[in-house]
Amino acid sequence: MSLNEFDIIDRFFSDLTPARADVLSGIGDDCALLQVRSGHVLAVSTDTLVAGRHFLADTDPFKLGHKCLAVNISDLAAMGAEPCWVSLALTLPEVDSDWLQAFSCGFAGLCRQYGLQLVGGDTTSGPLSITVTIHGQVKPAEALTRSAAVAGDLICVSGCIGDAALALKLINQQQPIDNVLLDRLLMPQPRVELGMQLAGVGAACIDISDGLLQDLGHICKASACQAVIELEKLPLSTAMKSYIDETGSWELPLSGGDDYELCFSISPDSLLQLRAGSDMDITIVGEVRAGAGVVCLDASGLPVTVNNTGFMHFHD
Amino acid sequence: MSLNEFDIIDRFFSDLTPARADVLSGIGDDCALLQVRSGHVLAVSTDTLVAGRHFLADTDPFKLGHKCLAVNISDLAAMGAEPCWVSLALTLPEVDSDWLQAFSCGFAGLCRQYGLQLVGGDTTSGPLSITVTIHGQVKPAEALTRSAAVAGDLICVSGCIGDAALALKLINQQQPIDNVLLDRLLMPQPRVELGMQLAGVGAACIDISDGLLQDLGHICKASACQAVIELEKLPLSTAMKSYIDETGSWELPLSGGDDYELCFSISPDSLLQLRAGSDMDITIVGEVRAGAGVVCLDASGLPVTVNNTGFMHFHD
Repeated sequence: MSLNEFDIIDRFFSDLTPARADVLSGIGDDCALLQVRSGHVLAVSTDTLVAGRHFLADTDPFKLGHKCLAVNISDLAAMGAEPCWVSLALTLPEVDSDWLQAFSCGFAGLCRQYGLQLVGGDTTSGPLSITVTIHGQVKPAEALTRSAAVAGDLICVSGCIGDAALALKLINQQQPIDNVLLDRLLMPQPRVELGMQLAGVGAACIDISDGLLQDLGHICKASACQAVIELEKLPLSTAMKSYIDETGSWELPLSGGDDYELCFSISPDSLLQLRAGSDMDITIVGEVRAGAGVVCLDASGLPVTVNNTGFMHFHD
Repeated sequence: MSLNEFDIIDRFFSDLTPARADVLSGIGDDCALLQVRSGHVLAVSTDTLVAGRHFLADTDPFKLGHKCLAVNISDLAAMGAEPCWVSLALTLPEVDSDWLQAFSCGFAGLCRQYGLQLVGGDTTSGPLSITVTIHGQVKPAEALTRSAAVAGDLICVSGCIGDAALALKLINQQQPIDNVLLDRLLMPQPRVELGMQLAGVGAACIDISDGLLQDLGHICKASACQAVIELEKLPLSTAMKSYIDETGSWELPLSGGDDYELCFSISPDSLLQLRAGSDMDITIVGEVRAGAGVVCLDASGLPVTVNNTGFMHFHD
C-alpha cells in the first residue's frame, strides 16, 4: 500500500468543494493563501475525532465525513462567524477507496451547503483519526463570546437537546433505534444561520458539545453571572420525553453532549426584535442573574440539584 | 486517568507563548479571533506527525514539541510568510505530566523565537499523534509560490542537505551518531528569515521535506520548466561528504527528506541584490531552463540519472 497525500487529496477531495474567489492559493502549494474580508477578523477552531473514542471504526464513512466537519462548523456558529475555509488532516490505517469516496462525499456535501472550500490537507498512515481546522470570518464587534451574558438576559437553546446522548445510549445497550434519532448523533446540523443572526445582538453563546450544564457553566464563568434554568422548559423530542418519563433521569438533556445546538443569553428586547424578523427554532429555558454557576428549578420553581446520573434532589 | 482538554492546555501551554496584540480572543472560547494585517493575506498549513511513522514513541518530547512546530513553520517560510498564530491538536495515550511539560517547552520555545501565539487546541485520548495548523501573513504580491520559476533563474539551496536522512540511517543501523547530526533530524530550524527576505523578489520556493529531487520537481511542474543541478555544487556537511565518499551513493542529499532547508529559483540580478544586503547561508546548485523535470549533472557536466539507491548512471 502506498499512501501518497497528493494522490489522495487530488483523487478524492479536489473539485468537490466550492472554489471561492477569496482563495488566492488552495491545495498544491506549501500554504493556502486566503483573503479575509475587510473589516472582519478570522475565526479559527480545531477538533480531533479519534476512532474508538469519538466514533466506532465501522461508522458509516459518509456520516463520519459529515460529522467531523459539522462539529467544527458548530464552533464557528457559536461565534456568529461565516464558514469559509477548511483544512483536513486525515490519518488512515489503509487506503480504502470505497471508504475515502464515501467520507469525502459526506465532508464535501457540508462544504457545499455552507460555501466552504477545502484549502489544505495532510494524509498520513496510522490509527484512524481526523483533525479538522475550520476558518470563518466575522466583524469583531459582532462576534459572540462567552463573556457577554448580563443579569436580566434570557437563556435560550436551539432545537432539542439530549437526543444524541439518547441515541448513543440505545446503541450501547444494543436496543432498536430509529433513523431520525440515530442521525441526531451521526449527522448533527450546525446552527450556522442562527449564529449569524445572533451576531451583533450582544448575545453570549456556546455550542452544546459537552452537555447543557457544563457548556452553560462556561458562559456563567466567563460572564461572572448565574444561569437559572427551568427543567420543564427544556426543549425535548418525543423520544427524550418518553425516556425521562420511564427513567425519571434528566441526565441526557442536561449532561449529554454531541447535540451541537446553540445555548445563548440574550436581552428580552433583542429576542423580540430577532423573532419579529423570522421564525426561529429556539426555546427560552431560563434567565441570567447575579451570582455564579447554573441553578436548575423543578416544575414547582424550586431549586434542585441533579446528580451524576441525572436524578433530582431538593436543596436542603 | 482523566483527560481534560481545558486542564491540559491551561496547565501546560497557557502563558508559555507570546501574547500578540492581534489576537482578539485566544484559547478559551469556541474559536480564536485573529486580526490579519491590512494589505496582507492569511497563509495556512497543516501537518500531522504520527508516532511510529514520523517519530519513535520514545523520542525526546522536548525535541518532538520543537519538531512538530518546526515542520509547519517551514511551510510558512517557503511562502515568505511571517509566522503569527498556531493551533495544536494533541492525541495522547495517557496524561504523562513529565512528557507534557517537556513537549510544551519545546513547542513554546519555538513559538517565542518567532513571536507565535498558541490560539487553539484540542486534546484527545488515543494513539500518540500531533496535528499542527499554522497561520502566518504575507502581502499577496510578495508570496513565494512554486510557479514563479523562469528560464535563466538560478537554483539555490539553504544550509546543507541530506543530514537528517543520514542521521535516520545511522539510528536505524544502530551506529554511533554525534549530537549535532542527530539534531539535524530532531531539531530542524525553519528558514523563516530567508523566506521573508525572498518575499517579493519573484522567487519560486519550496521547503525540502521529501528530498531535493522530488521537491524541486514540484517547482518544475508548477512552473513548467526544467531544473538542471550540478551534483558537485550541492551543499553537504563533512559527515555527508564522508558518507558519499564511502558509499558512492547520492541518495541522501538528493532524496532524503526532513531537512527543511529552502530550495528556490531566483534571477541572477535579484540574488546579487539580496546578497549585497546581508550574508546568506545559501548555495547556487544549478539553473532553470526550458523543458521539464530535474536533470542532474556530474563533475564533468554530463547528465546522469540517479537511481532509487542514489547511484549515478550515464544517460544513453
